[in-house]
Amino acid sequence: MTSQLPIPVLVNGAAGKMGREVVKAIAQTNDIILIGAVDRSPEFQGQDIGELAGCGPLEVPVTDQFEPMLAMLAQEKQLGVMVDFTHPNSVYNNIRSAIAYGIRPVVGTTGLSPEQLHDLAEFADKASTGCLIIPNFSIGMVLLQQAAIQASQHFDHVEIIELHHNQKADAPSGTALQTAQMLAEFGKTFNPPSVQETEKLPGARGSLGDADIRIHSIRLPGLIAHQEVIFGAAGQVYTLRHDTSDRACYMPGVLLAIRKIIPLKTLVYGLEKLL
Amino acid sequence: MTSQLPIPVLVNGAAGKMGREVVKAIAQTNDIILIGAVDRSPEFQGQDIGELAGCGPLEVPVTDQFEPMLAMLAQEKQLGVMVDFTHPNSVYNNIRSAIAYGIRPVVGTTGLSPEQLHDLAEFADKASTGCLIIPNFSIGMVLLQQAAIQASQHFDHVEIIELHHNQKADAPSGTALQTAQMLAEFGKTFNPPSVQETEKLPGARGSLGDADIRIHSIRLPGLIAHQEVIFGAAGQVYTLRHDTSDRACYMPGVLLAIRKIIPLKTLVYGLEKLL
Amino acid sequence: MTSQLPIPVLVNGAAGKMGREVVKAIAQTNDIILIGAVDRSPEFQGQDIGELAGCGPLEVPVTDQFEPMLAMLAQEKQLGVMVDFTHPNSVYNNIRSAIAYGIRPVVGTTGLSPEQLHDLAEFADKASTGCLIIPNFSIGMVLLQQAAIQASQHFDHVEIIELHHNQKADAPSGTALQTAQMLAEFGKTFNPPSVQETEKLPGARGSLGDADIRIHSIRLPGLIAHQEVIFGAAGQVYTLRHDTSDRACYMPGVLLAIRKIIPLKTLVYGLEKLL
Amino acid sequence: MTSQLPIPVLVNGAAGKMGREVVKAIAQTNDIILIGAVDRSPEFQGQDIGELAGCGPLEVPVTDQFEPMLAMLAQEKQLGVMVDFTHPNSVYNNIRSAIAYGIRPVVGTTGLSPEQLHDLAEFADKASTGCLIIPNFSIGMVLLQQAAIQASQHFDHVEIIELHHNQKADAPSGTALQTAQMLAEFGKTFNPPSVQETEKLPGARGSLGDADIRIHSIRLPGLIAHQEVIFGAAGQVYTLRHDTSDRACYMPGVLLAIRKIIPLKTLVYGLEKLL
Repeated sequence: MTSQLPIPVLVNGAAGKMGREVVKAIAQTNDIILIGAVDRSPEFQGQDIGELAGCGPLEVPVTDQFEPMLAMLAQEKQLGVMVDFTHPNSVYNNIRSAIAYGIRPVVGTTGLSPEQLHDLAEFADKASTGCLIIPNFSIGMVLLQQAAIQASQHFDHVEIIELHHNQKADAPSGTALQTAQMLAEFGKTFNPPSVQETEKLPGARGSLGDADIRIHSIRLPGLIAHQEVIFGAAGQVYTLRHDTSDRACYMPGVLLAIRKIIPLKTLVYGLEKLL
Repeated sequence: MTSQLPIPVLVNGAAGKMGREVVKAIAQTNDIILIGAVDRSPEFQGQDIGELAGCGPLEVPVTDQFEPMLAMLAQEKQLGVMVDFTHPNSVYNNIRSAIAYGIRPVVGTTGLSPEQLHDLAEFADKASTGCLIIPNFSIGMVLLQQAAIQASQHFDHVEIIELHHNQKADAPSGTALQTAQMLAEFGKTFNPPSVQETEKLPGARGSLGDADIRIHSIRLPGLIAHQEVIFGAAGQVYTLRHDTSDRACYMPGVLLAIRKIIPLKTLVYGLEKLL
Repeated sequence: MTSQLPIPVLVNGAAGKMGREVVKAIAQTNDIILIGAVDRSPEFQGQDIGELAGCGPLEVPVTDQFEPMLAMLAQEKQLGVMVDFTHPNSVYNNIRSAIAYGIRPVVGTTGLSPEQLHDLAEFADKASTGCLIIPNFSIGMVLLQQAAIQASQHFDHVEIIELHHNQKADAPSGTALQTAQMLAEFGKTFNPPSVQETEKLPGARGSLGDADIRIHSIRLPGLIAHQEVIFGAAGQVYTLRHDTSDRACYMPGVLLAIRKIIPLKTLVYGLEKLL
Repeated sequence: MTSQLPIPVLVNGAAGKMGREVVKAIAQTNDIILIGAVDRSPEFQGQDIGELAGCGPLEVPVTDQFEPMLAMLAQEKQLGVMVDFTHPNSVYNNIRSAIAYGIRPVVGTTGLSPEQLHDLAEFADKASTGCLIIPNFSIGMVLLQQAAIQASQHFDHVEIIELHHNQKADAPSGTALQTAQMLAEFGKTFNPPSVQETEKLPGARGSLGDADIRIHSIRLPGLIAHQEVIFGAAGQVYTLRHDTSDRACYMPGVLLAIRKIIPLKTLVYGLEKLL
């Protein structure tokens, strides 16, 4: 990467929790450079985003002037990237604006509807501009899901346990539901019964996700965010487990996306497409 | 143990799976000696129980003559013990007969009613004869349950996961239900909620055992018999796990019971009382 | 599979532990049929291999006439397969003989030298006959290794823990060494140190396998055969674990190999090539 | 606790990481009240310790006037407690001063020599003042160690795995060494070999702690602080695991110590004495 110009990046939502983490991660690379930090929060305007993020001054002040920053980024010699961790309400417009300026969006903000996704795909296509929509930046979790898909071709029995802190209200977790859905996509139904099961207490056998995959949700203080996919067959058990302990775990995925988006000409959905 | 006479033992149900395991275990000790092997199954009558159990000839033939064997055992110089792994239908009478002969029963057969237990306790008491009723001979599981009781004094949050092969029809397992019941005995209710939980799929949060302890049951081929008790508090998780892979795991408990019953004068229930 | 003729199979080493398991597994399929059972052990000659394997009579007697059985199998309408679980001393000749008759060898016997493998590959090639040499038939373990290779592209830190019963003399296990070797093949060195490590007790940090991957070997009674590959990065841990509890776990791999060998024209090494 | 006066507490080292955590924990109780916050760091003098600790104003300013605060605390109607998380260099004098004022010290600072401990025990004894020296405030870890001691009476085989982030320089961890030492105290030697073991790679079998207990140290980014004690016997494995994810995990132990010290008249060492 040494002979190339670094990739210039604008972080949108830079003062948020994920935004600051992205700023810190970029500051530690040689091949990516932070050009702008946009955030709507009035209290951070003008502050050095490096100081806010806790990685020392970067001489990039926080601003709420999104479009002017896009315009500035569009004049860089090197193709620019916008990383967006903002809000479901604004993400669609942010992406359209970025593409209009020829800036490549790497988007971690959730909440885009299927229609909006379809629309953005068309828009990116016409503009021949790469656009990455990444609902889960955790490379470890994406690897787990890919490995689970591989295993599901050879095992007929699988259950999922997800364990989270007891501040999490919903069960099962979105990622567990998504994992079951991914395994279901190949048309297989899992867990053919070998006996007539009886629940002496209702709920003992967990919930029934896609393709008859059981999902069990544990909620305890002290836990953070963990998922196990357990495959069983006669004489063997194969377990995939992912433990998240810190937001930092998403940064390798963000950096990978920034590096991989440059040659793209269309919208791509999901980190697994980049691995 | 070397200076003492070995403890003479009669195994009732000797040709069954547990009975054979007991025979093998006794054959490997120096301080316990197999005197008789009783079993009702016609096909094994007269066969050497050591050969059947796979530990070489012991010169103890299988017989269905239970009372004559008790009478013979009663004439040993050393106090005798009957180990009973028979059937719920016969166990009550077996115990009464043994006590009547002054033989100490070590009982792994399940199915005694509370009334029968009460009755046997009185009977053992009057005869000043020890009697051990042990629903679970697994020392590891009993240690886990004792450790869980200790932990439950200091943790307010706990869930149980039990994992078994998919031939097991009932969920939760009897041992998991019993573990929750043991934790509930001290009057505490666990898992005060910190958010309003929502099950997006019914059963995701498992079943509700005693004292609001959640129990989750996993069933997969390749699993054998496993239980986890997970305690959580701010910043920490404490997990107790027991894995059973072979019936041999019950033998240390059986041998312990045989050794500990000699000085007893009353009925004692549960392996935990001997630890 | 219903419209096709079943694949006729000869099991060589049929009365051994793995051989019997293979016989049982074949008996439960519809698309594979046992035609012959060869074993050198004098005590089993003429016995029904189904009875020996514990799956009921199959009307296939054990014989030590290997070549005549190959000749017979070569006359089947459908292409035949020989499954070989014999002995390092005889496996090379067994494979050559089978290929000479046009029979496809599926080989679980270990101990072939690199020269022998090279030689057999040439031989299979000339005969345009498939030949599968499979050092590890455990699909779960092969999936684990493949998933580990995927993960190793994205994680820089990895350690291996393997846990076995305390009858196992060698440490680390062959499979753990092989796993490290597979991760090393891509030229990466793992676990760049972030501090100067000090072992207060020698050996605490385990052994150093290929590519600086640490391997830790646990030996305890009660364990069977288990392996964990643990990847770590800032804020996340990704763990792959495989537990073996019974020889039955190898059978899906054996059946897969029997089904996949038919169209092959060359020697293929390793179950991973078939997944 | 409602009818009693709250226990007045002075936190020494209040502006440090542990001190702030203690302040927060006390602020959430009804039966303990923060009276003073002592810290030597010049930059925090006069600041509200509640603001510093992130739990809102408590109207307790940070001061470096340790002795005057002890004098003030000694005039409370209720017996006072000093919690000390300071520095190995000052802790001995802090404790002597507190006891001299009749204030009960709860000490998490490490580094006291055996001679100093002996001396302080005498001093507390003469003053009939409770004094708690607690090297590990994690109730979960102490419970694990107590459960391990129980299990070690019944299992002959045990190994320890401790897993920490790769910033930790020493291996094995102090807690793992201490756990082995605690199991060794009863005079038993563990892990009688059943085969002649061979290390194909040096260090594979880990390090040899007290009583021949193997300790294995894993170091990976993403891990925090974890310990497993694994007991094995024929047919079963019993595992105790503790995971620490946040300093908050020590607070229940600190609060317990504050509550339990009041009736004490002597020096007590170790949280396990209070459980």
